[in-house]
Amino acid sequence: MNTKSENKSENKPENKNQSKNQNSKTQSSKTQNAISPTRAENYPEWYQEIVKAADLADQSPVRGCMVIRPWGYAIWENIQRTLDKRFKETGHQNAYFPLFIPKSFLEKEAEHVEGFAKECAVVTHHRLEKGPDGGLIPAGPLSEPYIVRPTSETIIGAMFAKWIRSYRDLPLLINQWANVVRWEMRTRPFLRTAEFLWQEGHTVHATAEDAREETMKMLHVYRTFCEEQMAIPIIIGEKTSSERFPGADNTYSMEPMMQDRKALQAGTSHFLGQNFAKVQDIMFLDQNGKQVHAWTTSWGVSTRLIGALAMTHADDNGMIVPPRIAPTHVVIIPMLNKAGTENEVLEYCHSLCKELREKTYNVGSGANSTVQVEVDMRDLRGGEKVWSWIKKGAPICMEVGPRDVSNRAVFFNRRDNDPSQKTSMSRDEFVTNIANILDDIQKNLFDRALKFQKENTKVIDSKEEFYKFFTPKNSEQPEIHGGFAYTHWCGDPSVEEKVKADLGVTIRCIPIDYNFENSDGPGTCPFTGRPSERRVIFAKSY
Amino acid sequence: MNTKSENKSENKPENKNQSKNQNSKTQSSKTQNAISPTRAENYPEWYQEIVKAADLADQSPVRGCMVIRPWGYAIWENIQRTLDKRFKETGHQNAYFPLFIPKSFLEKEAEHVEGFAKECAVVTHHRLEKGPDGGLIPAGPLSEPYIVRPTSETIIGAMFAKWIRSYRDLPLLINQWANVVRWEMRTRPFLRTAEFLWQEGHTVHATAEDAREETMKMLHVYRTFCEEQMAIPIIIGEKTSSERFPGADNTYSMEPMMQDRKALQAGTSHFLGQNFAKVQDIMFLDQNGKQVHAWTTSWGVSTRLIGALAMTHADDNGMIVPPRIAPTHVVIIPMLNKAGTENEVLEYCHSLCKELREKTYNVGSGANSTVQVEVDMRDLRGGEKVWSWIKKGAPICMEVGPRDVSNRAVFFNRRDNDPSQKTSMSRDEFVTNIANILDDIQKNLFDRALKFQKENTKVIDSKEEFYKFFTPKNSEQPEIHGGFAYTHWCGDPSVEEKVKADLGVTIRCIPIDYNFENSDGPGTCPFTGRPSERRVIFAKSY
Repeated sequence: MNTKSENKSENKPENKNQSKNQNSKTQSSKTQNAISPTRAENYPEWYQEIVKAADLADQSPVRGCMVIRPWGYAIWENIQRTLDKRFKETGHQNAYFPLFIPKSFLEKEAEHVEGFAKECAVVTHHRLEKGPDGGLIPAGPLSEPYIVRPTSETIIGAMFAKWIRSYRDLPLLINQWANVVRWEMRTRPFLRTAEFLWQEGHTVHATAEDAREETMKMLHVYRTFCEEQMAIPIIIGEKTSSERFPGADNTYSMEPMMQDRKALQAGTSHFLGQNFAKVQDIMFLDQNGKQVHAWTTSWGVSTRLIGALAMTHADDNGMIVPPRIAPTHVVIIPMLNKAGTENEVLEYCHSLCKELREKTYNVGSGANSTVQVEVDMRDLRGGEKVWSWIKKGAPICMEVGPRDVSNRAVFFNRRDNDPSQKTSMSRDEFVTNIANILDDIQKNLFDRALKFQKENTKVIDSKEEFYKFFTPKNSEQPEIHGGFAYTHWCGDPSVEEKVKADLGVTIRCIPIDYNFENSDGPGTCPFTGRPSERRVIFAKSY
Repeated sequence: MNTKSENKSENKPENKNQSKNQNSKTQSSKTQNAISPTRAENYPEWYQEIVKAADLADQSPVRGCMVIRPWGYAIWENIQRTLDKRFKETGHQNAYFPLFIPKSFLEKEAEHVEGFAKECAVVTHHRLEKGPDGGLIPAGPLSEPYIVRPTSETIIGAMFAKWIRSYRDLPLLINQWANVVRWEMRTRPFLRTAEFLWQEGHTVHATAEDAREETMKMLHVYRTFCEEQMAIPIIIGEKTSSERFPGADNTYSMEPMMQDRKALQAGTSHFLGQNFAKVQDIMFLDQNGKQVHAWTTSWGVSTRLIGALAMTHADDNGMIVPPRIAPTHVVIIPMLNKAGTENEVLEYCHSLCKELREKTYNVGSGANSTVQVEVDMRDLRGGEKVWSWIKKGAPICMEVGPRDVSNRAVFFNRRDNDPSQKTSMSRDEFVTNIANILDDIQKNLFDRALKFQKENTKVIDSKEEFYKFFTPKNSEQPEIHGGFAYTHWCGDPSVEEKVKADLGVTIRCIPIDYNFENSDGPGTCPFTGRPSERRVIFAKSY
């Protein structure tokens, strides 16, 4: 294997801000990035550019709603497929419930409606008709307004109450893939949109223990999925009461660290106790012939995971999609700039594509997939194609020219490396090793993200250090701060309020299976001096 | 192979209307059906019972919206997976567009908004707040109401206008899997619901010819899918202007015959001409450097297909799911009623299940699947389990008792046969032949449905015979009439209006690739005596 840096002239990214970035690079042969601004220059804008440049999503004319473009949607389809397999392996079945929730249903659980009332899309009419000025106006008022589901506990619970008769019907383990709407005021593609796609699991159990076990099981399914498929290192833990799901007894979440050192809540699992069962009469005849209330859970992840993927792995040249979740593993780009060689180059590309497509690759969760390969036949220059795939983040981007044909070689960039770093290899070696190369990229991405998370997590034992940790060093880059603080907390909500008001920092979770730098165990809360059972994760967050 | 009729006492269906049906049966050993009423007794009610008994769907508390239950949803997932494969093979990519359509977008195409205005769910507010009497009322009025998409031509077209620059961007071939809402007044599960799930293809082309070719290509994809996967014989054809999609130049549809001899429009493909391109400025720079309007198409099928599946194949004992679309192919039911044999029976069931799951089965469209097998371990009596699977329509339902274990045999019912007809076979023979048995069931279901369609189609050349054909013979069974009439039509819309008013009969389509009883070619319209280019399909419909 021969790794070398090359700088083909046709490989220049199209950079709108060329002059601006030229001085900030240290590499000699490649002096600019495909994405502007860079992460260091302006992280939030960099994220918006990534979403656009990688063909993940586009803004729509509908307030707060995005369009998920084909590459972004193909990633979502892979997320769906692999998660769905894990749900089914743990005994869940899919079903589909109405988009609309009668207002009275939402109102049954007091905390629940309180939590969602401010962001409801309300359907009030069921037709349009000609108004006095000739334009169409809403007509046919509904006797009871419908809310476009922000989450489905109440409508699904109503059906559960109808379906469940006896302990023999339990556990009832249902999942729904659906769109939901929460009318957020400030939106950002994937991270916070008025409409988003998600799955919501809803389960019913005969005992509190069973429901608690389910809550934790699904949290672990999420973590395993994120770590194994998406190469995103996850800290799981319980939320404090201030960040609990409206109507839940306990909320647990996944909290990966993004590249701006903020936490992103990437999925939640709720133990709902008997709160919904009681207001919705979800009851069953137990083994002693007694009618009792059931125990329920709910859990969900959404298209937000695509935001997490981008902010974990993408770099200043574009998206990086881990192989196990990538819609395309290998892109083959025919370099047709030498007259008379076109046919042999194309033939080589297509036969290589065919050969690679017959190889299988373990995409995690015990599932094999054939290697996904594409020959990019678009009517564009080779260099434009190369950069479009670097920006999309396909794991391996290969350029095939006449020299590769005569040497029976391949020449490619691994997207976990810098675009300038390309490898030449014999075609046979590449084909034989493709699964290993993909595995290696997957592992490298996870290791890199875990290293970043650890480097930016700190055990903090004094209030002063805590405040310093979260204060940006440079006022021009207010995004850059310490990261995760692993700090004692006495349990007093007023501490949470204070650090939130002062620093915009919250407790992300009380972690589970986490013992950073072996600093676990009881201690003293640096904010109050009172005893603390254990450390928690403080961070800024999305 | 040994086919025999048996009547095990535990196999009695639970029939609410036992006495009512007992006299209507001819079979000696089985005197009742699992579904009441039967098709002959009351077809519309039979359909509602099938939907319930087969675990396909349930009524929801939301007006006109159903809940798709796990078995129904699993069928939908199989429809999605196989159709999606066919879409991708024909070059389409999936994407996702907003649920909401601004009112002004819908209004751009005059015919389009006219067609949908009467059935729009209108979002007018974006939050709930405490009203004067303490209850929550809609608040935060929107400056422009949003319509919950009834179809997405207008919102997707707005994005296409933004994305398309030059002929190099064409064709643009996009599909969306989504929920849509049409506020129908009279609803029926799967056939007509306020919310339904569907896919909608939207494509843009440089020329009218390309767009027409796409329209027909997707109509053929639908037909092949329905015939090969769902075993539903399809007649395709063009709609007359009275049944055209609002805003289309030409609408084509699939029109299978249901068991009550009515047609069900099961999918449509529209050539939209430049109608949407012109009002939405979908333009491109052609090869001569000129800005011109593009040509668009759209096409869709929905969860209505599950209704078509039920009304094509189900019988008086429940649903029958063709193997290629069935979530479970073989159900193994351990018969544990003989003390002391439980362990050997269970062991036999599980080892058989494992062995069968290793077999592959061609599920059509060139895709192999492993055979889907389930051992029914529910805490129910064996006979109850058998009947629950007959009602759900799993292709093969097997009962395993101690005698089968000692004989190394299997004893099963093929769902395309009467439930009383069961086959005994050596276990090895069954395992070896499982794919053939499933193929045979699939073929048998298709052949049976095609025979029914042909038997109930008639070439009709006189007005008198036409009226007689569509007049119910028995006033107590107004559903029972002739079926499809293959009849000449001069093209005059007043003929359509008249037969619709008189008989509730419409032209389902002007068929393509169809020449029933070699009666094709020009002739005379029996209604006007004027010349007719060709025969069309008249029928009652859903």
